[in-house]
Amino acid sequence: MSELKIDTRLWSSKARNLSPYVPGEQPQHENLCKLNTNENPFPPSPKVGEAIAKVLEQQADDLRLYPAPESDDLRAALAQLYDIDINQVFVGNGSDEVLALVFASFFLKERPVLAPDISYSFYPVYAQTFGIELVQIALEEDFSIDPDAYRQPCSGIIIANPNAPTGLLLSLADIRKLASEHSNSVIVIDEAYIDFAQAADGSSDAEISAVSLINEFDNILVTQTFSKSRSLAGLRVGMAFGNASLIEALTRMKNSFNSYPLDKLAQVGATASVLDVEYFTQTCQQVIDLRHSLTAELTALGFDVLPSHANFVFARPKDGNANMVANALREQGIIVRHFDKPRINEYLRITTGTAEQNNRLIDALQMLQKEAEIIAD
Amino acid sequence: MSELKIDTRLWSSKARNLSPYVPGEQPQHENLCKLNTNENPFPPSPKVGEAIAKVLEQQADDLRLYPAPESDDLRAALAQLYDIDINQVFVGNGSDEVLALVFASFFLKERPVLAPDISYSFYPVYAQTFGIELVQIALEEDFSIDPDAYRQPCSGIIIANPNAPTGLLLSLADIRKLASEHSNSVIVIDEAYIDFAQAADGSSDAEISAVSLINEFDNILVTQTFSKSRSLAGLRVGMAFGNASLIEALTRMKNSFNSYPLDKLAQVGATASVLDVEYFTQTCQQVIDLRHSLTAELTALGFDVLPSHANFVFARPKDGNANMVANALREQGIIVRHFDKPRINEYLRITTGTAEQNNRLIDALQMLQKEAEIIAD
Repeated sequence: MSELKIDTRLWSSKARNLSPYVPGEQPQHENLCKLNTNENPFPPSPKVGEAIAKVLEQQADDLRLYPAPESDDLRAALAQLYDIDINQVFVGNGSDEVLALVFASFFLKERPVLAPDISYSFYPVYAQTFGIELVQIALEEDFSIDPDAYRQPCSGIIIANPNAPTGLLLSLADIRKLASEHSNSVIVIDEAYIDFAQAADGSSDAEISAVSLINEFDNILVTQTFSKSRSLAGLRVGMAFGNASLIEALTRMKNSFNSYPLDKLAQVGATASVLDVEYFTQTCQQVIDLRHSLTAELTALGFDVLPSHANFVFARPKDGNANMVANALREQGIIVRHFDKPRINEYLRITTGTAEQNNRLIDALQMLQKEAEIIAD
Repeated sequence: MSELKIDTRLWSSKARNLSPYVPGEQPQHENLCKLNTNENPFPPSPKVGEAIAKVLEQQADDLRLYPAPESDDLRAALAQLYDIDINQVFVGNGSDEVLALVFASFFLKERPVLAPDISYSFYPVYAQTFGIELVQIALEEDFSIDPDAYRQPCSGIIIANPNAPTGLLLSLADIRKLASEHSNSVIVIDEAYIDFAQAADGSSDAEISAVSLINEFDNILVTQTFSKSRSLAGLRVGMAFGNASLIEALTRMKNSFNSYPLDKLAQVGATASVLDVEYFTQTCQQVIDLRHSLTAELTALGFDVLPSHANFVFARPKDGNANMVANALREQGIIVRHFDKPRINEYLRITTGTAEQNNRLIDALQMLQKEAEIIAD
C-alpha cells in the first residue's frame, strides 16, 4: 500500500486521525528463529485439531448455519475451569476484540482511563478509537507498578499483569487495593500472560490470577487469551471474567458491533483446549523452565534481565546497545523485539523459544561478544 | 440472563443506551424446518472442509502462530474472482463486522446517513453504537427504492441490494445515479444476497453486482458475505470491495479495533470456497430454481409474493394474518420470520429451503387452509 496515494476525502475525521496498532512483524522466511511476538514455542493440544477434524468429518454441512452467538459450550468450559458461573464469562475474537469492547463499555466516560506508561501499546490506540482520554502513569524506576500512583479520579484502570514488555507481576494484594480505592471504576486486569506467572515456589494459579477476586469485587474485570499459554494465536479467541453485570455490558456492546465473532470451528477448538488440562499444565511448565534457563544464560552474558513472569524476558545488553544487538541477530535470522521508546530503548523483549531456539540465540550472542572483543583488542 | 438483576452502575452511558441487534432465533430441536435466518439449504463446497482438514493434518502446529493479519491469500482470490486489484478488497469477521467498520470509517460525520426505512435491522444499531444520525427514507408503496427520495445532504447512504426482507433489486442504473448525485458521500451497497439475483433471463452477475462500478466511482463501496451464497455462515467471513482509498480507511479502522479478525482456518476455508467456482454456480442456480417454485406454490395458495432476487421470499398470506400463520407453522416445527413492524407486519419472510423443506412448508400451509375452510363452513 505504501506506493499508493491515499485520498482521505471521503473518510470520517475519526478514520483520518487514527494511529492504528502495529503488531510485531510476521516474516515468513524459512528457518527463521521468531522470538518477537510472544507466541508459544509448543504446538496447541492435539485435542484441538482432533475436535475440529471431527466436526469437519461429521458436521461439515453445518457450516452453512450460523454458529452459537454466545459460544455457550466454550463459556461453560471456561466457567468450570475457574469454578464460576457461565454468566461471569465472556468470549470474543481474540482478547484484542474483547479489550476494544471493554473500552467502549466501561471507559467511555468523562474522566480519563489510567494505564501504565510502559505497557501493551494497543491501549492508547483503543482510547483514540473511542475518543477516550488515557492518562499514562509512570512505572517506578525499577519498572514496577505502584498502586498509590493511581490515586486520581478516573473512569477506570487497565493494567497488563504480568505487564508487557517488562514481564513484572503485580500482587493480588495490590489489585485488591486498586479495586477498593476505585469502587466506582472498573479495574481491568489484562492477564494475557498470567498462566506463565507460576512462581518458582510452585504457588498455584488460583493465588495469582485476579479471576479469584471477581466474586469479591464487582468492579474487577479480567481478560485472558488463547494466543499465548494455549498456543492458539491462529484461532483468535480471547475471554473476560467478571461480575455478571459487567459481562452483560460486554455482551450488549458485542451485539451492537458483531453478533457472531467466533466461528464454529474456533469455538470447538478452544473448548477442546480448555478441557485438556494436563497438556496445558505441562507445556506451561516447560515454557517457565525454558524462561528460567534463558534468563540464567542471558545473565551470564552480562545482560540485565528483569524477573519475568511471562513467556518472554525483558533484557538489557551490557552496553545498552539493544538496537545494534537486534540488528545483528536479525542478520543471523533471529528476530527479537526492540521498542524505540524512552526508558526502554536499551532493552530487548525476547520470546522464550524452544530449547533449540534459545540455544541458537545464545550462540549468536556469544559470537557477537567475541567479535566485539576482537574489535576492541 | 433474564432472571439476573443487571446493575448498570459501572457502565458507560453508551453501553447503557444500546439497543443491540437481535438475530433470528437459532433453536436446536431435532427435525426442525428452519426457514427463518436465510441460511443456504445446501452445504458449503466440499473443498472447504478438505482445505481445512489438510491444514490440520499438515500444519496444526502453526495454529500457535498469529494468522496473516490482512488475509492476503483470501483477498487475492477475491480480487481474481472480480478481476480487480488486491488493494480494492477488504475482509472481516462476517459482513456484520465489515459494516461496523464502514459506519465508523465513512458515516461518522456531521450529516446523517440515509437508509431505507425497511431494510437490514442492524443499520440503526450501528448508527446508535457510533453516535451517527440515521435518517430512514420510506420505501415506495410497492416496497421499491426510489433514488430521487435520497436527494438530501448526507454523510453517506447504505442500501441492501437485493433489499431485505423485501428481496427487491435496485438496478445498476439507479446505483450510478445515487453515486453521481452524492459524489462527496460514500454509497454502500450491501450485497449479502446478490449472488441469488440472477434474473430468469440468465443475465450474468457482472451486470448485477455494483462491484463492476468501483473503478468508475471512487465513492461506491460494496459489501458481501460468505454466509448466504457460499453456505458458510458458521465460518464468519465477509468482505468489501471499493476504491483503494476506501479500503485503506477500513484497514486502519480494523487495526484500531482488532488486528487479526480472521483465524487461520477461516482464511483457508473461505479461500477454498472462492476457488470452487463450479460448485458455487451450481448451488446458487439450485437455490434460484427452488425460489421460483416456492414462489409459484405460495402464489397458488393465495399468497402475495414479492418478486425476490434473494434466497428468501417476502410473502403476504391472503388475509394478511401473517403472525397467526407463523405461529401455526411453528407448531408444525417450521420456523419462518415475522417482523412486528408497521407496513410489513402482514408479511412473512421465508427462507428458500431444500425441495423437501419447501414441500413440508407448502403441505403445512395447505393443511392450515383446509382447517380454516372447515371452521368457516
